[in-house]
Amino acid sequence: MATKKYQVNFMPINRSTFVEEGATIAEAAQKADVYIKNLCGGQGICGQCRVQIISGKVELEDKAKAFFSKEEIEKGYVLACQTKVYDNLEVLIPPESRMEGAKILTGEMLKATEIEIEPIVKKIFLELPKPTIEDNVSDSTRLSRELRKKTGWHGYDISISCLRKLNSTLREGDFKITPSIAKHRNGYKIIDVEKNDTTDTHYGIAVDVGTTTVVAQIVEMNTGRVLGVTGAPNPQASYGEDVISRIIYACNKNGLGELHEVIIKTINQLIQNLLSEKDISLNSIIAMVAAGNTTMSHLLLGLMPCTIRLEPYVPVADIYPQVTAKEMNININPEAIIETLPSVASYVGGDIVAGVLACGIAERPEITALIDIGTNGEIAIGNSEWLVCCSASAGPAFEGGGTRCGMRATRGAINELSISDGKITYKTIGNAKPRGLCGSGLIDCIYELVKNKIIRPDGKFERDIKDERFSVVDGIPQYVIVPAEESGTKQPIVITETDIDNLIKSKGAIFAAMKSLADYIGIGLDQIEKLYVAGGFGNYLNIEKAIGIGLLPDIPREKIEFVGNTSLAGARICLLSEKALEKAFIISRAMTNIELSVYQPFMDEFVAALFLPHTNKELFPSINY
Amino acid sequence: MATKKYQVNFMPINRSTFVEEGATIAEAAQKADVYIKNLCGGQGICGQCRVQIISGKVELEDKAKAFFSKEEIEKGYVLACQTKVYDNLEVLIPPESRMEGAKILTGEMLKATEIEIEPIVKKIFLELPKPTIEDNVSDSTRLSRELRKKTGWHGYDISISCLRKLNSTLREGDFKITPSIAKHRNGYKIIDVEKNDTTDTHYGIAVDVGTTTVVAQIVEMNTGRVLGVTGAPNPQASYGEDVISRIIYACNKNGLGELHEVIIKTINQLIQNLLSEKDISLNSIIAMVAAGNTTMSHLLLGLMPCTIRLEPYVPVADIYPQVTAKEMNININPEAIIETLPSVASYVGGDIVAGVLACGIAERPEITALIDIGTNGEIAIGNSEWLVCCSASAGPAFEGGGTRCGMRATRGAINELSISDGKITYKTIGNAKPRGLCGSGLIDCIYELVKNKIIRPDGKFERDIKDERFSVVDGIPQYVIVPAEESGTKQPIVITETDIDNLIKSKGAIFAAMKSLADYIGIGLDQIEKLYVAGGFGNYLNIEKAIGIGLLPDIPREKIEFVGNTSLAGARICLLSEKALEKAFIISRAMTNIELSVYQPFMDEFVAALFLPHTNKELFPSINY
Repeated sequence: MATKKYQVNFMPINRSTFVEEGATIAEAAQKADVYIKNLCGGQGICGQCRVQIISGKVELEDKAKAFFSKEEIEKGYVLACQTKVYDNLEVLIPPESRMEGAKILTGEMLKATEIEIEPIVKKIFLELPKPTIEDNVSDSTRLSRELRKKTGWHGYDISISCLRKLNSTLREGDFKITPSIAKHRNGYKIIDVEKNDTTDTHYGIAVDVGTTTVVAQIVEMNTGRVLGVTGAPNPQASYGEDVISRIIYACNKNGLGELHEVIIKTINQLIQNLLSEKDISLNSIIAMVAAGNTTMSHLLLGLMPCTIRLEPYVPVADIYPQVTAKEMNININPEAIIETLPSVASYVGGDIVAGVLACGIAERPEITALIDIGTNGEIAIGNSEWLVCCSASAGPAFEGGGTRCGMRATRGAINELSISDGKITYKTIGNAKPRGLCGSGLIDCIYELVKNKIIRPDGKFERDIKDERFSVVDGIPQYVIVPAEESGTKQPIVITETDIDNLIKSKGAIFAAMKSLADYIGIGLDQIEKLYVAGGFGNYLNIEKAIGIGLLPDIPREKIEFVGNTSLAGARICLLSEKALEKAFIISRAMTNIELSVYQPFMDEFVAALFLPHTNKELFPSINY
Repeated sequence: MATKKYQVNFMPINRSTFVEEGATIAEAAQKADVYIKNLCGGQGICGQCRVQIISGKVELEDKAKAFFSKEEIEKGYVLACQTKVYDNLEVLIPPESRMEGAKILTGEMLKATEIEIEPIVKKIFLELPKPTIEDNVSDSTRLSRELRKKTGWHGYDISISCLRKLNSTLREGDFKITPSIAKHRNGYKIIDVEKNDTTDTHYGIAVDVGTTTVVAQIVEMNTGRVLGVTGAPNPQASYGEDVISRIIYACNKNGLGELHEVIIKTINQLIQNLLSEKDISLNSIIAMVAAGNTTMSHLLLGLMPCTIRLEPYVPVADIYPQVTAKEMNININPEAIIETLPSVASYVGGDIVAGVLACGIAERPEITALIDIGTNGEIAIGNSEWLVCCSASAGPAFEGGGTRCGMRATRGAINELSISDGKITYKTIGNAKPRGLCGSGLIDCIYELVKNKIIRPDGKFERDIKDERFSVVDGIPQYVIVPAEESGTKQPIVITETDIDNLIKSKGAIFAAMKSLADYIGIGLDQIEKLYVAGGFGNYLNIEKAIGIGLLPDIPREKIEFVGNTSLAGARICLLSEKALEKAFIISRAMTNIELSVYQPFMDEFVAALFLPHTNKELFPSINY
């Protein structure tokens, strides 16, 4: 007997699909290409996928009840991931669960680098002289002749699709025409022509393809103004949380194809979101720049990442070809160019190149460092003379993974925390009820626990602790940060000794990487004149406490600046400046990668860093718990 | 009531189709993509589409009976274009009617120009050092690094499709790899990679896209050896015989799309024919060069030709972009590059540029001319310092059109003719029974008629002619060249006063163009040191008689050389030499086009040339009838 099928219609966008009985509403949404927030991957623990049933019968799972008030339950609220379909349903996605409204913090905080705007695709308005019998050169020669007069550039390629419409475009616009001209490594190419003056409608997309989160901006190319920014979880996460597991998945039969398709689909969805309610046509978006780590860049372009994870860690490419939107199935102008920022090595990607570019490290004589804290911690140190970099697997602790109550820096995450006289105070993102701790909250938490002598510098709880928040559950010591009654999840938010152990390993790996890299090049950490800290901490990182736990080096605080998402900033800069894009290539070639996995001192540094703040107290003279 | 449908199966290729009752066998063949020779366009007068009915009933039209012997009729021979389908049929296409066996004379007669073989797409075998932890650059960097070592070139683009297979290709071939590298105006691009050494299998296609005939060659790129050549009528002819009527068709709704598709289909068919019984894979064909007049090049690339025919005669492009086979739906390696030779102006195309290149006109200090006789007569004159050209509409007379018994230079065409003591002797192509007169036969015929005083120098028959071959039918004087009983069509082959008039206009236009061009640049025709004559005359042209009717100038005979199809020769040279392709671009830019339609002296010259050999006898001192 065939399984029964039911129709699920999603409002307010009014899109329907049919699913087999027993499928969840979240699965129906996926099938209908309707995006609902989903942070926990469908485990029913994040409470983000709240939807309201308008018509049709469903059953509210006990597990889900904790997420709703009595009133909400009466109004038909359920969790999309926990609710199965046994009836035709009409489902309203409330604003807070919609992806397009999701306040994924794009976290770009860097003060705008001064750039001269000279976009990688230019629009130039031309009034061509009309053909006469004395001047009857071909349409394309007429166009490139006037372009040359106006710009001084020589030699234009022209796409065949552009040539195919040139004849009618010229005549419909009475020889007033706006060509779109893309910079290519080897010259210029006319990728589109429009009649009349369209230089006003000229847009580009910058994308940070993160392992966990994908963030896209739409940029007005003439002014550099960011018209919108939006983010979504990287859907590849459901195939594997970290790059290694995604590589393994990709290297199975057609795994690469699947991972490639879902990221393209997500970027298209983000672009659609960016355009909603804006009077911008897809055709007027004529460039996109993407930045991501080497694996993300490979998956974006459909390149086999298999050898990235195997010694000797070889990617297919580090410089990626310029491709067209058409080739990539990105729904903007089909002839739009897509640039993927170059990588340095298998574990130092275009995101770091973007960061080095955005922070201007290669522009200045003084030694500057960038530390990008994510699942991998990547570090670059250098100046206008030299650049070195390395990466260390830090684990997902600072992105909310690997800890009992960790979460990403989204609504309801505790991102600031203090303990004073045994009393805990905290702030959450969006001032919502607390649901967990994001990276910056975890850093604060560890710092406060050790400062208040609740845990010891080795990360273990004090044996003689007398605190009702402390308990041992199933043999694991834990400490309640937020009691169940205050929590947005109706469950207590706790930190366990295992969590603390993981966090110490993560911060230890990052600090050890930085220390090893400095030693390798023969400088002391105190010689760093400026330290930029990037990463998915939302909009907040307490520098003092990050030093306090030994994540960041103990250098004068004014030298350290938290800069948020530098990958996105770098991508946007490259969109707006062909010189910056060239600079990104130069940076990627100039940067020397130190392979820590085969660099013995790193292991010693790592072991030494598994302490709060460090086994060698002399490295942290200002820290005195 | 629905029309009845019948199945028609074509042997020996065993391909079937269904057609509505009353459709002709020729139409069924077209529908089934089976090519049958068809010179008269389905009028039942050329007798080329002979097929044998193996099973099923058909009726032989009276009109067609003339083409067959009694035995053939008994065996079931019919003309495909005259025979309607009222039964399921099995049809054998005999060898002489098959397109793949058709001896369309490719007519390339030029002595091979000495070229240094350096194909526009190269294959280079590399054994790459395997990656180690000390040398773990990306696959693409490893590849381009070794390429640089071997070739000294810098900077490689790489196609995305190529990058997508690089990782596995390298490892399957144990780091032995053969990249295919295309020359692009701005540098080099790796378009394919194959494991192991595949430099032996390296092919290209040269195509002459003529208004009437399309000819393709397959060339071994390492040696320059031509492995095969084949031709087919340009199927666009059924939409209009000359370029003007095709432009008009193209500029109607979707007309361009249709004309573009049929020429692509024909080229694909020719490639398939070239490969039949050869052990060559489509993927090993990695380049194609096409040459054609400006309109043919536009239709090939899908460019709007509308403004070519309207004053001031502006084409969309004169330099055409390099495109990929994939973009053009040409069935060779999808990443193969396709170059279309550049045009000079709306009526001086890449075919002439190819001719100037193949004849080496721009290489030599002495003044050389090329005259390409077709529906348009194009003339180029120049040397290593300067080049000028022009075109004149000659009409289709020399290609067998516009005359009662004219035909193209294929089997059965009279291509040589003499009259002596009232007796006519002739030769036909393939020594077949005569079916008509091709261009060279018509030239001989006019010459012999005037020499033997059957016609006067003004092209009219002598009033007092006493010759049983002469008669006046429907008021038009005509002369029997071959009586019905000798003819392959069972109809007499005649030449009429109207035919002669048309031929005089054609030769007059070409000579006037040449004379005007020489006057324009201030040289006498006697200053031409070498005159190459190209055109669709098959393998034969009687220079003496061509001078005798005033088509060619009266200069020493040893200065004149008949070179056949220089368009194809030039295309092949460009396939084999990137320097030659560059030279073609230079030639197209260097050549000055003189627009005769607005050059008053041309009209005067034309009127003066409407005489045999010319009104000014001083121009033809050696001609004395």
